[in-house]
Amino acid sequence: MRTRTIVLAGFVTVAAAALALVPPPSVRADNATVAFPDGYRNWTFLHSSLVPGAFGAFSKMPCVKPCTNGIFHFYANELAMKGLRSGAYEDGAIIAEEMLEFKIGENGTGGEGRRVLAAVMVKDAGRYASTGGWGFGNFDEGSKTNTLDAKAQQACFQCHVARKDNGYVFTRYVER
Amino acid sequence: MRTRTIVLAGFVTVAAAALALVPPPSVRADNATVAFPDGYRNWTFLHSSLVPGAFGAFSKMPCVKPCTNGIFHFYANELAMKGLRSGAYEDGAIIAEEMLEFKIGENGTGGEGRRVLAAVMVKDAGRYASTGGWGFGNFDEGSKTNTLDAKAQQACFQCHVARKDNGYVFTRYVER
Repeated sequence: MRTRTIVLAGFVTVAAAALALVPPPSVRADNATVAFPDGYRNWTFLHSSLVPGAFGAFSKMPCVKPCTNGIFHFYANELAMKGLRSGAYEDGAIIAEEMLEFKIGENGTGGEGRRVLAAVMVKDAGRYASTGGWGFGNFDEGSKTNTLDAKAQQACFQCHVARKDNGYVFTRYVER
Repeated sequence: MRTRTIVLAGFVTVAAAALALVPPPSVRADNATVAFPDGYRNWTFLHSSLVPGAFGAFSKMPCVKPCTNGIFHFYANELAMKGLRSGAYEDGAIIAEEMLEFKIGENGTGGEGRRVLAAVMVKDAGRYASTGGWGFGNFDEGSKTNTLDAKAQQACFQCHVARKDNGYVFTRYVER
């Protein structure tokens, strides 16, 4: 049996797709308040999505290094977990995402490679009022400096507006 | 750029491949001491592997439902994390694995579907002395009953023997 279905849980797909559509910023951050999510590997793992190199969106917007194709893992800190369950996010809630190289072995199985980037959304209703109360960050491989300037963070937010009724959050946590 | 490499971190691949090669047991468990890993979703997430339906091993051993192709997530409780760092596993260490349906959306991205099975290895040097100190369990969708009888657990162990020098553990935790 080959597991292949047409319908995906939309917002999970969109979450990864949205990141894939955001071009790498060309300038350094002018907002250093969004910090690298130290310790996120010990937070609650939410889910994974896979964006292959052949992902359709890249035909509309050619992939520029670092290309945002790979395996995406999403994590939430305790306050974000509380928000994922209630729909309301308190200041301090953080959702982290890491994009890893997706490697395919000789036998056809796939696994993880190096971390290409980490991304984050940090809730602070006052500080980030112009972007729905969320500050957005991107951290290239080996760096803890946010590469997203104010314009790039607005671009993140404009996509997340579609999830206004969900606290601007695309990701989810499935109990099982 | 298409991310595709030939070499995979061997033991991660093998971990998923090994499970894929274990045929579903035909008898009920006669060892109910290996329990379902309640709460594993709150443990530390280790890594993911992907075993596609076209995985080569299935050409040698036709896939019988439930087919073990999909996306595999691995988790460790605190004692297992201690073991992953030290190489020595205390009684009570548990490594859990879940196999989810892998769904491919219309736009080519991949995501998670339902949990098809959960699997576990539980350390108790005395109780499971005949299988390297590890008890093995498999739990079909929606069930908390271990389907692995003593013979099936021996089959698990015979594969894990290859990792004797690593406490019989295939999986790993990568700091990043």
